[in-house]
Parts: sequence; structure tokens; C-alpha cells
Amino acid sequence: MTLVKIVDVTPRDGLQDATGYVPVADKVALTRDLFQAGIHAIEVASFVHPRWVPLLADGEAVLSQLQDLPGELIALAPNLKGVERAIAAGANTVTLVVSASESHNKANLNRSRDETLSQLTEATRRAHEAGLKVRGAISTAFECPFEGVVPINSVAFIAERYCDMGVDELGIADTLGTATPIQVKERVCVVQSIAPKIPLALHLHDRLGWGLANVAMAYEHGVRIFESAVGGLGGCPYAPGAAGNLDTEKLVTFFQAQGLASHIDISQLPGIRQRLLNVIAQQLAPPN
Amino acid sequence: MTLVKIVDVTPRDGLQDATGYVPVADKVALTRDLFQAGIHAIEVASFVHPRWVPLLADGEAVLSQLQDLPGELIALAPNLKGVERAIAAGANTVTLVVSASESHNKANLNRSRDETLSQLTEATRRAHEAGLKVRGAISTAFECPFEGVVPINSVAFIAERYCDMGVDELGIADTLGTATPIQVKERVCVVQSIAPKIPLALHLHDRLGWGLANVAMAYEHGVRIFESAVGGLGGCPYAPGAAGNLDTEKLVTFFQAQGLASHIDISQLPGIRQRLLNVIAQQLAPPN
Repeated sequence: MTLVKIVDVTPRDGLQDATGYVPVADKVALTRDLFQAGIHAIEVASFVHPRWVPLLADGEAVLSQLQDLPGELIALAPNLKGVERAIAAGANTVTLVVSASESHNKANLNRSRDETLSQLTEATRRAHEAGLKVRGAISTAFECPFEGVVPINSVAFIAERYCDMGVDELGIADTLGTATPIQVKERVCVVQSIAPKIPLALHLHDRLGWGLANVAMAYEHGVRIFESAVGGLGGCPYAPGAAGNLDTEKLVTFFQAQGLASHIDISQLPGIRQRLLNVIAQQLAPPN
Repeated sequence: MTLVKIVDVTPRDGLQDATGYVPVADKVALTRDLFQAGIHAIEVASFVHPRWVPLLADGEAVLSQLQDLPGELIALAPNLKGVERAIAAGANTVTLVVSASESHNKANLNRSRDETLSQLTEATRRAHEAGLKVRGAISTAFECPFEGVVPINSVAFIAERYCDMGVDELGIADTLGTATPIQVKERVCVVQSIAPKIPLALHLHDRLGWGLANVAMAYEHGVRIFESAVGGLGGCPYAPGAAGNLDTEKLVTFFQAQGLASHIDISQLPGIRQRLLNVIAQQLAPPN
């Protein structure tokens, strides 16, 4: 049976754009629920400066309560300082981020791609030294909210730089949710030609209902790692118009119908979604 | 630019399961609207015995009012008698139908696959003699409502028989709407290996939201003809649980985002959908 790996990004990406703050205990419970259902790679924290995404200032607290979980505890880290915090907090995997488009990188990280990349070499070295796995994510790998369709060469350029750093996994993200299967194919193939031995992940949003078509095309061309979020939650605060992430339940259902991802107990997913929606609803309810 | 052909099946397949009867004038107007929008292959009539699908007893009347239309006017014909009627009525293309599964063929056509196929050889000869194009459709090419997943060999068997008859086009139909991309790939590839030079059409239903994923996979493996219906209307009266057809607007939007099917004026499609829904709504309204 062919292995498909689901990376659930709900505790971090899914909730960073939420209307209210989700308490640490609920993020921890959500992560444990996902792990229990068979999803063993979960993005739980972000170590961007809390000034930028205040809702995610609890990365250390979340990770401290998950240290017994024998899975991939992923933390987003935009720079060396973020990596240091992720190491100290007990993440075992960091996801670095660079946008393929300059404007989005500046909006998202407040510096140029070159400045970002030059920091990340040291960040990767440091993470590896501490025994962490390093994922190199390429944001706006399809369309940029400010620049439009992103040239494939920009994606290739970032992929090459990540390769030079020695990352363990690459990822391309359809930040806006406008990717089409033909674009997925061309971008997946170019990254794979640059880094044939580095596993490649795909992060999709589902704005136009094309998410699963993109998944199918990526799978056909060798991608085996897919990111998704419970209830399709999430969106990028620095990408106006971005829709939610690809829905975990929808993705797993789709794979299981094809004999894939059968290690996940899909019967647990509706309950996980409902519990999370209840938590969010509590934040939205007016105070008594 | 790669050619993609949309076959809109609304006037026949889309409306055969409608709650009320749609008048001939409205079917004719719908067909002309679709043609005007750039969809030049339209399934307009069915010549099954009117006892079985009374709503479609008007095939002759519909076709008689479309004789000036320089497009592909397609009529469904289940047997030799149906082909004779299609010829007499002025269709220029007939779609023959056999189910890959025996039970569905009996439910749909009231006879066995072998009996059906033996009639269709003569039907094909007769249609060709009269200058018509012949399409050979394989129903339940994925799952049968009575037998479950249909063995791929059953699909191959029907495709081979159609080839022996000399049909001009082949088609495989996901009658129930349960097909997955991996199944689409394997079934498309087996039919293409049997008939590499005969154009292959795909007829999808969209019950589970996997329609476009299946389209993407079929396109990737060389399929260039896709059937759809306005508003996702339609379903098979002899396939309990079948959902509507793949939606024409959704399909064209998806293709155009990829630089395909640009000969279709998508701006006309919402109006066509609305006019048709108004017609159907009139049938549903209680009499004064």
C-alpha cells in the first residue's frame, strides 16, 4: 500500500486567523485527538514574533504539554530566533517559510526574500544541531495576492536555496487557493527535478472547490505529504482573499476511497471537528 | 492550445429525471442557448421506448426544430429501432449504451449485455450508412448500484465489442458518482489501450465532490471530451442513489482557469442556468 502522510495544521495555521483566542488546553486536546485518530504530524505552534500574530504567542505553553506525544510536533519558525524558541520549547520539527513572491514575503515576514534566506541557512544548521527535522515551505508558490501568478522560476529559486541549506522536506503552498491541477503538476515537477530525493509536501486552500483535483494531480506526480485543517479552518492574515485550508476530513475521505491513508481512523474526525467548533463558538458567544 | 470538448447533456440526460415535463420549445431554446455559448455538441433527445421514459417521448419534435443548427445533435439510442428513429428525426450523432454490469444493463435496457451488443452491431452499421456519427457509451463503468465495484475486465469487454462494431467515439460513465481519480486512471488507460485511436469521453456525476478531481486525472491521461449538464441536473432513473451530472459551469470554469475550453463564453452560462431553473420551477408550481 502506498503511504500518504497527512500533516494537520489546525492548532497553528487553522487557528491563527480565528475570531477569538483558543486556550492552550483546547489546542493540546485537539492535538491529542488528532494523534489518537492516526494523524501523527501536527503543526502545533508558531514562533513568529508575538507582536505579529498575538493569537499564537502560546507556542511554548502548548508544546510543554505535548512532550509525551510520540509524533511529529511541528513549529513554524520564520527566522533563527524562532528556531531557537522552537528548540527550547521542545518541538521536534520546524517549518521555515519563504514566499516565492517578494511582496508577500515582505508582508508576511517584514523583510526581503534574500534577507530571509540568508538567515535560514544558520537557522537550519542550528535546528539540525539540536536534532530537529527541518521543513522548507515555499509560500505563494502559485499566486501572490499582490503580484498575481508567480513565475515558476521564483519557486525553483527558493527550492534551490532550501536544497543548499540541506532541509529535510520541502513544501509548496497555494496560499490564495487559486492553484489548478496543471499548475500543481508543473510546480511539483520543477521542485522534484531540483530535489528528487527530498520529500515534497503540498499545502492547499480550497477556495474554488479545486482542492481535491489538485491533490489528485499532485499524488499522480509523486507527492505523498498533504497539509490540511479540521473543518477547513485557517487562512493567511497577510493574504487578503485567501480561503480556508483543505479540510482534513474531506481529504482523508478522498484518500481512503482510493485505498490510501487507511492508518487514519476517519470515524473520529467528525467528533474532533465538532469539539473544535464548540470551542470556537464559545469565543464568539457574547459574555454573560 | 489543447482542445477540450464539452458535451452538454442537459436537454436529454439532465431533464429525463426532472420532476415535471419540460416543453419542447424550452428544450429547443436551451439547446440554442448552449450552442450560442460555444457548446457545439449537445445531447438533445432519447429514442428509448416512450413507455420507459415518458418525459423524453418528444425527441422527434425537439430535433425537428433544430435542423438549422450546425452542431453535433446527439440522440441516445438503445437499439436498432432507436437508431432508425434518430436517423428519421434528423440527429447527426447517436449514442449507444451498454452497461458494464449485467444487472444495471437489465434494469436500464431490459435485456442482457450480450443481447444488447448483438443488436448494436447492426445499429452501428445502419447509423453509419445514414451518415451519422456513432458514440459507444459504457454505463456503470465504475460502480453498479446492484453489483458494487465493476471489474475493469467488464469495461474492457464492452470497449472491445464497441471497437469491433467500428464506433467513432467511446465513452465511460460513472453512473453512480463514486469514481475516484485512481479508478478513472485505470479505466481510461485500459480503454485507451484497447482503442488508442478512438476519442474517449468521460461522463461524471458529482455526488461526493470528486468530479473535478476525476476530470483532472482523465485530462492528464489524454481524455479530451467531457459530458456535463447545466446546474448539475440529471441522474439515472435506474441507478438508485445516483446524483446529478457534473455541472457545466463548474467544469468550464475549471478548464478556463487552466487555459482550456476558451472557445466557450462562460459569461452566458449563469443566464442559461437561470432560465432553465425558471422553466423547471414553473412545472413545480401548483396550478392556479
